[in-house]
Amino acid sequence: MNQQTAIRHALSVTRKADFAAWYQEVIGEAEMAEESGVRGCMVIRPWGYGIWERIQARMDARIKAAGVENCYFPLFIPLSYFAREAEHVEGFAKEMAVVTHHRLIGDGKGGLVPDPEARLEEPLIVRPTSETVIGAAMARWVQSWRDLPLLTNQWANVVRWEMRTRMFLRTSEFLWQEGHTAHATREDAMTETLRALEMYRSFAEEVLAMPVIAGEKPENERFPGAVATYSIEAMMQDGKALQAGTSHYLGTGFAEASGIRYQDREGQQALCHTTSWGTSTRMIGGVIMTHGDDDGLRVPPAIAPQQVVILPMLRDTPEDEALLAYCEALRAALTKQQALGEPVRVLLDKRPGKATAKRWGWVKKGVPLILEIGGRDAAGGQVSVLRRDRLWREDGKVNFTAMSREAFLDSAASELADIQTSLHREATQRRDAAIRRDVTSLAGLEAMFAEHERHPGWAEIGWARPAGAALDAVIETLKRLKLTIRNTPMDAPEPRGSCLFTGAPAVETIYVARAY
Amino acid sequence: MNQQTAIRHALSVTRKADFAAWYQEVIGEAEMAEESGVRGCMVIRPWGYGIWERIQARMDARIKAAGVENCYFPLFIPLSYFAREAEHVEGFAKEMAVVTHHRLIGDGKGGLVPDPEARLEEPLIVRPTSETVIGAAMARWVQSWRDLPLLTNQWANVVRWEMRTRMFLRTSEFLWQEGHTAHATREDAMTETLRALEMYRSFAEEVLAMPVIAGEKPENERFPGAVATYSIEAMMQDGKALQAGTSHYLGTGFAEASGIRYQDREGQQALCHTTSWGTSTRMIGGVIMTHGDDDGLRVPPAIAPQQVVILPMLRDTPEDEALLAYCEALRAALTKQQALGEPVRVLLDKRPGKATAKRWGWVKKGVPLILEIGGRDAAGGQVSVLRRDRLWREDGKVNFTAMSREAFLDSAASELADIQTSLHREATQRRDAAIRRDVTSLAGLEAMFAEHERHPGWAEIGWARPAGAALDAVIETLKRLKLTIRNTPMDAPEPRGSCLFTGAPAVETIYVARAY
Repeated sequence: MNQQTAIRHALSVTRKADFAAWYQEVIGEAEMAEESGVRGCMVIRPWGYGIWERIQARMDARIKAAGVENCYFPLFIPLSYFAREAEHVEGFAKEMAVVTHHRLIGDGKGGLVPDPEARLEEPLIVRPTSETVIGAAMARWVQSWRDLPLLTNQWANVVRWEMRTRMFLRTSEFLWQEGHTAHATREDAMTETLRALEMYRSFAEEVLAMPVIAGEKPENERFPGAVATYSIEAMMQDGKALQAGTSHYLGTGFAEASGIRYQDREGQQALCHTTSWGTSTRMIGGVIMTHGDDDGLRVPPAIAPQQVVILPMLRDTPEDEALLAYCEALRAALTKQQALGEPVRVLLDKRPGKATAKRWGWVKKGVPLILEIGGRDAAGGQVSVLRRDRLWREDGKVNFTAMSREAFLDSAASELADIQTSLHREATQRRDAAIRRDVTSLAGLEAMFAEHERHPGWAEIGWARPAGAALDAVIETLKRLKLTIRNTPMDAPEPRGSCLFTGAPAVETIYVARAY
Repeated sequence: MNQQTAIRHALSVTRKADFAAWYQEVIGEAEMAEESGVRGCMVIRPWGYGIWERIQARMDARIKAAGVENCYFPLFIPLSYFAREAEHVEGFAKEMAVVTHHRLIGDGKGGLVPDPEARLEEPLIVRPTSETVIGAAMARWVQSWRDLPLLTNQWANVVRWEMRTRMFLRTSEFLWQEGHTAHATREDAMTETLRALEMYRSFAEEVLAMPVIAGEKPENERFPGAVATYSIEAMMQDGKALQAGTSHYLGTGFAEASGIRYQDREGQQALCHTTSWGTSTRMIGGVIMTHGDDDGLRVPPAIAPQQVVILPMLRDTPEDEALLAYCEALRAALTKQQALGEPVRVLLDKRPGKATAKRWGWVKKGVPLILEIGGRDAAGGQVSVLRRDRLWREDGKVNFTAMSREAFLDSAASELADIQTSLHREATQRRDAAIRRDVTSLAGLEAMFAEHERHPGWAEIGWARPAGAALDAVIETLKRLKLTIRNTPMDAPEPRGSCLFTGAPAVETIYVARAY
């Protein structure tokens, strides 16, 4: 009999049994978020929001280090701005929240209705992105070559009406950052586009411990109006791809639509080259599906709201006092340490309730290190340590390690760093093992995604960059197979042989996958 | 001839000539914010948003230190939530942005209109506060006494449709934090209400360098539904009062409306006592009107996006290289220092353009310390320092002080701390000098606000806490005089004599003022 079967996991659903249900259970049990009662909008609870705050702080530091300045633009955008965009942009998305009135009045039956007298002359749209208003502001701010580059970023909530929503991955309202920059030359703008892409790649790998492939999207997956779109793509534990960040080189098209012009050194008027790039609360969905296991979430220490939780085994006896003093001293000593470049975040959980029940609560929240400390440990200067990423022993018991307080304090920071690295390594190995390079025919591709329906992984294949009708035919085929092209990696392996779809000589390597 | 007349100030309007126009000019010239083209909504530019980021970081640290956890609640609130509230709350505000459709379609004439097919069954309101949805969440989260206190805060944008808007002070959309807490007892809730009030008071004084009076609002100024409302009140340079933060004890009324109940230790169901408290981007308006002068903004160092700006006097000659190296070394040395508990924030302004023109740009932005450094300074190890709060010499010249690089580095941190203190002291003295304690009759009050129309200041008077018809009469009188009661200070002086309005013996001291 396999020892593994003895393990009683903390969640009721395993990843293998039902990945989608498992995802929801992780979020619920970790108290990260919940349905709000408002269609497609979630309430982000302290544990989920704490993770977002860590992500935001770390990403913001990278954005600022690149010389980009934060601004804030209005929530509402006049309808006319979109009418203008709709003319220019083919893939114009129309599912938006439309504000038509600015007052409520009683309906005479005890209810409230929009006041017909307070109808807006021009409806306002709740921003799906601030692209258009930022473009209008840039047109005001940029006059001369001296004003360039103009590097702006906004942290904000945006709304895109979604029919099918899934917490963190696809919600009608979500939180994000959107960078918008204007440059004198194509070269500068392209450098910025790729800088943002690299910022996202290194952020995902180093902070989220989430391996990603940075690359260029194929023509049919470009942001509407973009000249080139780049993305970072992560593989979830069900083998699907998650686009976790995008960066666009927009050429001069957006500058033309918004009138972003500058006077060059010779006194001539010229159009700016612009870029935009964004990441969102979707990254939290990526973290869950990259690192979560059948016992709940596992949070990389770099973004864990608490990195260490200390659980005193209180007994409602006078000895509790000495135990609490011991734990408090331990907490204080830990917070003075640095791990991953910041003071260690420690919580001493003194809430009423049994330590075991509280332990499983923290396991499901994914705290990297859990300490359980009883009266005897306190008396003997001991601690009992649980690493969330090594939860179970081979015999199916919880993998606590007893050690002296000093030994723990000496090793805590390096343990946290090691958990960060281990999670990244584990995810990278899983991803790399699930990339198939032996698929060379459409029949093979079809078989791959039919045979292994639960976790087919990704196919790395040759690509001839078809265009026009040839590309349309490929898109049709992919649609039928419910597949998508993710991207052409920046550090692409040499293209192999011929294009799987067209048979022409491959000029690039691409990844094909199911996607969120 | 007075030397002062020789000064040519950086702004075109003085505070004395036209305070409202001066306020707008400060904001424009400091590049803090601008009109967005969307009614009542502003674009917050990097300098304004940088100040908000500093405010947010410092306030958030205080909120977290009190054990309050950040969450995020949806932007939209179903209409029915307000119908419920409208029943309960008399002062229900109806000016709100109402979302009625979720799609745009072409109108057949090249324009876009809300799609009649996509009308929402129930309109959604853009949150004017999240009170109701947070109440609903608390009802889910609180089950037993073990879950109390529940301490939540949200940083978010909110919308209140305003007919007359003024940047930072009254905008349709603004940024704020709203704390919402639930407690087992009245005592706990009141303690939390006053903790938040004291947090705001000390924050305003210590971080914004803005003297405030913390106190209780009179009955007629209470938040609708609150049992007690407290505020911090600051005096602007035109003598008007600005309410810069509020804290409410809500009793059990909101808990009843939202169903926030808990099982107590005896197993009985009981209603929670709740509180709420908030501050917003309005504080930035307060900072402008407290510290600004006729040369623009003056930012307290604690919230200055840059505390020191270094201006090299470049000449487009080969000597520029040595000058820039000198300035860069100075910048690096400064950033290693700590001032006001954080690393010094320094900008080396290498942009093209004349140093003098750039200097006035930074003066108008209110940077605490400006350094101008020429080639000869660099060669001689000198710097030329300008303190923004001591801009002019008596002879009408700009007040630069030459000193050695070492002397400057030795004193920079303490200079910044001193500027913070000086701004606070200056504002406190101005405020205290403008509080009149000799007004004892209605006629006197009327005369005070008639005679000194430009800057009457505040009147500190006795108050008998009238209620019912007596209070209504007072409100009527105040309305006629365009005056308001600000609050009863927490550290109130002994009430003097009789109530100015009713003649009854005074039981409290109150402040009466014009207000924003």
